Amino acid sequence: MAFTITEPTLLLNEDICKSNIQKMAQKAREKELRFKPHMKTHQSSVVGQWFKEEGVNAITVSSVKMARYFSEHGWHDITIAFPVNINQVSEIDTLASSISLTLLASNKRVIDKLENEVDHEVGVYIELDTGGNRSGLKPEETDKIKNLVFSLKKTNKLHWQGFYSHPGHSYQARSENEIIEVHHSVIQQIKQLRHNLPFDKDEFEICIGDTPCCSVAENFEGIDAISPGNFVFYDLMQLRIGSCRLRDIAVAMACPVVDKYPNRKELVIYGGAIHFSKEFLENRHIHYGRVATEMEKRWQLRDQATYLKTVSQEHGIVHCSKESFDHYQIGDTITILPVHSCLTANLMGTYTLGTDQIVTQL
Amino acid sequence: MAFTITEPTLLLNEDICKSNIQKMAQKAREKELRFKPHMKTHQSSVVGQWFKEEGVNAITVSSVKMARYFSEHGWHDITIAFPVNINQVSEIDTLASSISLTLLASNKRVIDKLENEVDHEVGVYIELDTGGNRSGLKPEETDKIKNLVFSLKKTNKLHWQGFYSHPGHSYQARSENEIIEVHHSVIQQIKQLRHNLPFDKDEFEICIGDTPCCSVAENFEGIDAISPGNFVFYDLMQLRIGSCRLRDIAVAMACPVVDKYPNRKELVIYGGAIHFSKEFLENRHIHYGRVATEMEKRWQLRDQATYLKTVSQEHGIVHCSKESFDHYQIGDTITILPVHSCLTANLMGTYTLGTDQIVTQL
Repeated sequence: MAFTITEPTLLLNEDICKSNIQKMAQKAREKELRFKPHMKTHQSSVVGQWFKEEGVNAITVSSVKMARYFSEHGWHDITIAFPVNINQVSEIDTLASSISLTLLASNKRVIDKLENEVDHEVGVYIELDTGGNRSGLKPEETDKIKNLVFSLKKTNKLHWQGFYSHPGHSYQARSENEIIEVHHSVIQQIKQLRHNLPFDKDEFEICIGDTPCCSVAENFEGIDAISPGNFVFYDLMQLRIGSCRLRDIAVAMACPVVDKYPNRKELVIYGGAIHFSKEFLENRHIHYGRVATEMEKRWQLRDQATYLKTVSQEHGIVHCSKESFDHYQIGDTITILPVHSCLTANLMGTYTLGTDQIVTQL
Repeated sequence: MAFTITEPTLLLNEDICKSNIQKMAQKAREKELRFKPHMKTHQSSVVGQWFKEEGVNAITVSSVKMARYFSEHGWHDITIAFPVNINQVSEIDTLASSISLTLLASNKRVIDKLENEVDHEVGVYIELDTGGNRSGLKPEETDKIKNLVFSLKKTNKLHWQGFYSHPGHSYQARSENEIIEVHHSVIQQIKQLRHNLPFDKDEFEICIGDTPCCSVAENFEGIDAISPGNFVFYDLMQLRIGSCRLRDIAVAMACPVVDKYPNRKELVIYGGAIHFSKEFLENRHIHYGRVATEMEKRWQLRDQATYLKTVSQEHGIVHCSKESFDHYQIGDTITILPVHSCLTANLMGTYTLGTDQIVTQL
C-alpha cells in the first residue's frame, strides 16, 4: 500500500472494473443479447460512464430513487427491477415523462393501479420466479401469466415488454458446474414457457439478471437480454460461488490498523459493520472479509489464517497468522476484500481510485 | 398505521425514547455515576438534545467524525470510545483545541505518538478488556497497566483520566441472570485492579459502557461513570439478551408491502439489507426483524410465525401466519422491529417522529 489512509476507505481498481465491464459487454455482443447492466452495486454515475463507453444505453436499477439519479445523469432507458411499489406511482409517472421506463409486475392489482394512475407510457416486464422464491410468477403458472399478458394488452398506457427473472438461487452454487445447473434449469423453464404461450417470439423479450449465470454460462438459448450487476466489482462471495477469479475483484477496503494483541494474534482495525456490512462467509471459520496485498495491480490473498474475524459498529478484529501479525504495525493500512461488494459500496458511499480521486455515489 | 409511507422509513417513538433516556439518567443519579451516554446508536443532534434536557453534559462517541459532529452541535465534553487511530492525530488535535476531549489507549506506542504530536491537552482512558476480547488490556496485566499509567503521568499534554471498558461479552447473555453474571465478573475484575494499583482511588475514574449491564445491574461498586448507547432505542437483540422489555423499543421500520404470495404465505416488502442491515437473530428460525403493530402507542409483536425471513439489497421477504397474511394487502405499510437498531439507524440516516417530522443524523 503506497499511501496512508486515515479512515476506512473503499478502493476501486479502475482497470479491473473496466475489464469486467468490457468482458460482460463483449459476451453480450457475442451472444446477441441486449446488455442492460444493473447499477445497484456501484450506484455511481462515474462507473455508469464506463458502461456508456462500451456502448451501453439501457440500464437496470433497484429503486425509483436510483432510477431518478441515473436519469439525472444522462440515462434515458431504465428498468426498475423491483416489484412496482404502488405507493410510488406518482414518482414513477414523473420519471416516465422524461425517460423510457420499464417496470416489473406480476400482479393484476398492480397493473390496474398503474393503468389508472399513470399519464405517461411505461413498459412492463412480468416477473418470473425461476427458483429464487423471492418475487414473480412461476413459469409453469401459464394461465396466470397469459391472463396477465391479456390484461396488459388491453391497457392504453402500459406496454408489455416481456419477462424478467433474477435467478437468485444461483447464489447457493459453489462451483461453475453448480452455476451451470441452475442456469440450465432457468433456460429449460423459459423454453417451456415460450412453448406454452400463444404469443409470437418477436412480440416480447426475456431478460435475466444474476451475476453467477451471466458470468459463467455460454448457452443463452431463448434469452434476449441480460442485466447482471455485481460483476462490475465481484467480491469474495462471487469467488466462493464460482462466478469469478480472485483477479477479477475490483474493490477492496483499506483500513487503519489501530492496535495489536500478540497473545491472540489479532489486530484491531478501524473498519466495522457500518463499513463492511455484516455479510459473512463460512469457510473453516466465519469471516467478514479476507486480508489481501496488492501485487502487480491485483489483489493477492494472504494466508487462510488471516481474515476479518468479527465486526462491531466501527471496530474490526483481524485474526492473523504469525507472519501476518508480524507484518502489520499500528498505523499501517490493511487491505481487506469484502464479502459482498454491493452492501459495502452502499455503506461507504464513495470510492477512491488510485491514491486520491474520489467518486461519489447516488 | 395511520399514514402511508412510500419508502422504507425509520419511525422513532419520541415518548419511549425519552423515557429510556430519563430512566438511565435517573439510575445514574441514584447510583452516583457520571452519565456519559454513547451517541453511536442515534448519531443525531436532536436526540442529543433530549439528553441535555436530562442534565447530561458529557458524551461518548465512536469516531473522530462523530466527535466533530457533536462538538459542532454544542457538546464540549466528548470521549471517543475507540482505540486512538494514530493516523488521525492532527484531526484529534484540532478537536482538542475547542472541546474537552478524552481518548482511549492501551498501547505505549500510541501514547508516545499522541504526546509528540498534539499541541492541546487531551484526556486518556486506558482501555480494559474485561472479557469482550475486542480491545484493551486485561485487568490482570497489572504491570503493563502500571507502566502505561507512569508513562502517561510523565507526559505534558496527556491527562490520565482512568479506565474505560466495554464489556461486549454481555451480548452473549440470554437472561437478566446471565447479564448479572457478566456484570459481577466485571465488578470483581475492577475491584482487584483497584487493589493491585498503587494509585489513590480519587486519582482516576472507571467508566463502563454496555447497554445490557447498565440496564439491568444494580451494584456499581467501584464504577464511577457509565456510557451505554443502544438503550436509547433498544431492539430485538436487547430484548433477546434480557436488557429491555418489548415496550422499551423506541424504533421500528415502516415498509411498503409490494406483493403477496399466497402459496408460501409470504409478503414481498420494499425494505432490505440496505435498510435493516444483515444482522439476524435465530429463534425457531433465522430472522432479520419481527412484525409489530402499534397499540396504545407501544409496539405489539404479531405471532411468532410472522417475521422478516430474508433480506436482499432492497427486497425483504416476510413470512406470515395465515392471519397475518390475510391482514396485509399490497400498498399497506408493514411495521417491523429491527434486530440491531444501531446498524439500522446508521443505514437509514433519518428518523420520522409521528407522521412527518424528520430528524437527520450525522
